[in-house]
Amino acid sequence: MTTQAAPGGDFLHDCWYVAGWPDELKPGDRITRTLLDQPIVLFRTEAGVCSALEDRCCHRAMPLSYGTVAGERIRCNYHGLEFNTVGICERIPAQAKIPSTARVRHYPLVEQDSLLWIWMGDADAADTATIPRHRWHDDAAFRWRRYHYAVDGNWTLLVENLMDLSHLPYIHSRTIGGNPDLHFGVETRTTRGERSVEVVRHMPDSVPPPTYLAARPFAGRIDRWQEIRFEPMVIRIHSGACDAGTGAYEGRRAHGFSMIGFHGITPETESRTHYFWSMATNAVEADAAERIFQQTAETFREDQEVLELQQRRIAAEPDRPLIDIASDAGSRQTRQLLDRLMRGERERRLSTSPA
Amino acid sequence: MTTQAAPGGDFLHDCWYVAGWPDELKPGDRITRTLLDQPIVLFRTEAGVCSALEDRCCHRAMPLSYGTVAGERIRCNYHGLEFNTVGICERIPAQAKIPSTARVRHYPLVEQDSLLWIWMGDADAADTATIPRHRWHDDAAFRWRRYHYAVDGNWTLLVENLMDLSHLPYIHSRTIGGNPDLHFGVETRTTRGERSVEVVRHMPDSVPPPTYLAARPFAGRIDRWQEIRFEPMVIRIHSGACDAGTGAYEGRRAHGFSMIGFHGITPETESRTHYFWSMATNAVEADAAERIFQQTAETFREDQEVLELQQRRIAAEPDRPLIDIASDAGSRQTRQLLDRLMRGERERRLSTSPA
Amino acid sequence: MTTQAAPGGDFLHDCWYVAGWPDELKPGDRITRTLLDQPIVLFRTEAGVCSALEDRCCHRAMPLSYGTVAGERIRCNYHGLEFNTVGICERIPAQAKIPSTARVRHYPLVEQDSLLWIWMGDADAADTATIPRHRWHDDAAFRWRRYHYAVDGNWTLLVENLMDLSHLPYIHSRTIGGNPDLHFGVETRTTRGERSVEVVRHMPDSVPPPTYLAARPFAGRIDRWQEIRFEPMVIRIHSGACDAGTGAYEGRRAHGFSMIGFHGITPETESRTHYFWSMATNAVEADAAERIFQQTAETFREDQEVLELQQRRIAAEPDRPLIDIASDAGSRQTRQLLDRLMRGERERRLSTSPA
Repeated sequence: MTTQAAPGGDFLHDCWYVAGWPDELKPGDRITRTLLDQPIVLFRTEAGVCSALEDRCCHRAMPLSYGTVAGERIRCNYHGLEFNTVGICERIPAQAKIPSTARVRHYPLVEQDSLLWIWMGDADAADTATIPRHRWHDDAAFRWRRYHYAVDGNWTLLVENLMDLSHLPYIHSRTIGGNPDLHFGVETRTTRGERSVEVVRHMPDSVPPPTYLAARPFAGRIDRWQEIRFEPMVIRIHSGACDAGTGAYEGRRAHGFSMIGFHGITPETESRTHYFWSMATNAVEADAAERIFQQTAETFREDQEVLELQQRRIAAEPDRPLIDIASDAGSRQTRQLLDRLMRGERERRLSTSPA
Repeated sequence: MTTQAAPGGDFLHDCWYVAGWPDELKPGDRITRTLLDQPIVLFRTEAGVCSALEDRCCHRAMPLSYGTVAGERIRCNYHGLEFNTVGICERIPAQAKIPSTARVRHYPLVEQDSLLWIWMGDADAADTATIPRHRWHDDAAFRWRRYHYAVDGNWTLLVENLMDLSHLPYIHSRTIGGNPDLHFGVETRTTRGERSVEVVRHMPDSVPPPTYLAARPFAGRIDRWQEIRFEPMVIRIHSGACDAGTGAYEGRRAHGFSMIGFHGITPETESRTHYFWSMATNAVEADAAERIFQQTAETFREDQEVLELQQRRIAAEPDRPLIDIASDAGSRQTRQLLDRLMRGERERRLSTSPA
Repeated sequence: MTTQAAPGGDFLHDCWYVAGWPDELKPGDRITRTLLDQPIVLFRTEAGVCSALEDRCCHRAMPLSYGTVAGERIRCNYHGLEFNTVGICERIPAQAKIPSTARVRHYPLVEQDSLLWIWMGDADAADTATIPRHRWHDDAAFRWRRYHYAVDGNWTLLVENLMDLSHLPYIHSRTIGGNPDLHFGVETRTTRGERSVEVVRHMPDSVPPPTYLAARPFAGRIDRWQEIRFEPMVIRIHSGACDAGTGAYEGRRAHGFSMIGFHGITPETESRTHYFWSMATNAVEADAAERIFQQTAETFREDQEVLELQQRRIAAEPDRPLIDIASDAGSRQTRQLLDRLMRGERERRLSTSPA
């Protein structure tokens, strides 16, 4: 199937996105979800195969998600057409010959690391080796919990929010905010790769904060880190600490304390975003882990509120310029990377269009 | 009054539409109803005359439906202007001379067969002899009940739905669905007239289904029929049966069992439709008739849900083509007839426009 | 700061508008309010100064109204930027140098006569001497009450409604309506000034109505008046009476009975209007004053309903002409004045634009 231009909005298509969580779909289940302005039905066959098809029957535009999983196919509930997991119609009631046009768009879909990954671009270009990994979801040393927030804001606002944590003392003053001077005082290194941006802040030989002490015993002073990594279209935020001088900055961290936020950012439309996130921690105490989950869920609701307020102002005057400040380095690098990738994608599409 | 172009949408104007049910309007009542994108006030004078006027005072655009029926006129409740049943202003408070521009558009309105019929096109072309008849509403052998559903979908989706009943086993599997093979197996004849389409399915010498037996005694096997007739902008669906060989297919049916659905399809806007329908039956048992009414009302709610889901997908990509299947013959013929009538109307209007 | 074109709608900008009531803002408070399509934050500093700024941070478009008043500044709650009362950024966390572009638009704001007045045009042209006065709010002989209605209608519909009271017998038949003949029978004089329109109706030597008798004793017959004055963008409606022949028409009215309606009409958007109004009366009895407040509040809700119904019809066909009737003199004059002022403003802006 050839590439289709998105019906609207400005998105990166050739990219793996989080489409949902595998346990949302038991055999026979189907859900409808709009991703990058495209209505998609996700379903699991009775044999357990997950599939993503366009949620629009090619006959009368009926959503297939209103239909029924029948064996290894999904059946439209208007006139009974049945489609297999790659979108080809295999049955039309009372009709022997099935035309080759009887098919709906199929999206590559992969289950990996307890996540459902969907490829929204040209299916021929989908390479499962490029799916971002997140092995902590399957690491027995970690407890984790998953969430799905629906944000009434453009997806780039969420990317920016996560790549620059200097907002913590303001938005999150009631929760994890802490001391503004600490946040702004630490040196921040930003590194840009071919398809990634990393923001790293190390706080060696610091006093452990109460949250950390509650989660895991520490001998005295600690080596803390906060590492943010963007790779389209997920962001991983790893915060934690080890006893000072025990190898935290040389990659030996299993004996320390970790909180690992996974943030899958999937545009729903130009003005709405699916925010699939999880928090994983190796806190020893179940109570401490529970408090981390509760607090994070509350904190991200504060971010959601901010993004939605921003969205309204930006939507009213989308072309009006904004100014940057010093702490924007991480988010600015990420925007530049995204601009380059989206420009590349547009040029690639133009050059492969039929003459 | 000369013809006005509709403010939007693609409609057939030179056509009688169902505007409502006569008993919605007692003397002195007025209701507002948007038909073909035009706001209309329907009212009944104290002497009992029904009238349809534009629901917008020519002075300050106030809806006349917010006003009061005063004798044989309707009075605007903002500044007291009064209009007669053909839309001419006959009183302006504290003003002796009434300008000839003080008038609102009038729509021909007729009460017939317990229905209110409105002509939405050029008033000069309104011919009451062309109003579709439905005498069963006044036939003492029939009980009937009336309904008004507001469907969030384009009117043509409802036309298509009714002209092709192959959807019964799928949408209505919980209600009247029945066996898919029966529905798809029977020969279907489609006949097209100058302004009508008929779809006829005869099932001679069949076993009577339980619904039929509950409604009326049968001797043994039966001659069943299902006849659908479209004539803008109503559809009649007549289902029933007589004892086999007693004249069902020669037009002698009074001794048999009939269920006659009347479907008045009146666009509200491009994306919403007034669905005025009734079910009439000569079932002998009151209980059986009651069950037919209940089941039909539930069944049509299932159709409504489907049309509204279709509408969302079609509205998102209105120009994207759909494929036809074998069972679409009746609905395809009806769409072609409607296309021809609407094209003829557009050409007629162009040729009569002032040069 | 140079003049900015409004993002939409047709408004008079070089004009003082009511922005709210001073006691809505205690020190440290901030509220967001859209005026003439522009989102504005109103706040009062800890020292008590009121300020109106654009409600959109220049950094990431965050509404400042979501922030916090910090001393004499307002602080954005996303990244902590702080702006003074004229919109200049005076602090960016962790950044020594503040760029000159770090500022938001400032609107002149004045507290006078227990009202907050805002200038929505070019700040250089703001002359506080031209703010309409309303001294009754600070007159010990008067009790008054204030209201803020949000009307889903264009602002000119409200202006028209207030400048022509011939609608009283129709809309307000249940409340203050009274006798249509009285309303239409009295001579009405309309006078137009450079920036004002006055409509005056005098009813000398009349019988006092029950409302008047309940509010204040009268010796016998009375000299009544009803005087409406428009001056952009407020309307004052003064109704009242003195004992006949005691100077009512020569300006000696303190011994009589007065009801003085203040109507601040501030467009929110093209289709929504802030209606800031107050009723002041020198009724002797507190009960009588209370009844006047109650009745007026109810009456203006009736007007609001009418304006919202009008708006829907007009928005559907904005360019379709309407007819005028004899009683429209006051509202017609006001519309003509507004048209002239808005045309003048557009021409002034064109002539001062950079070549």
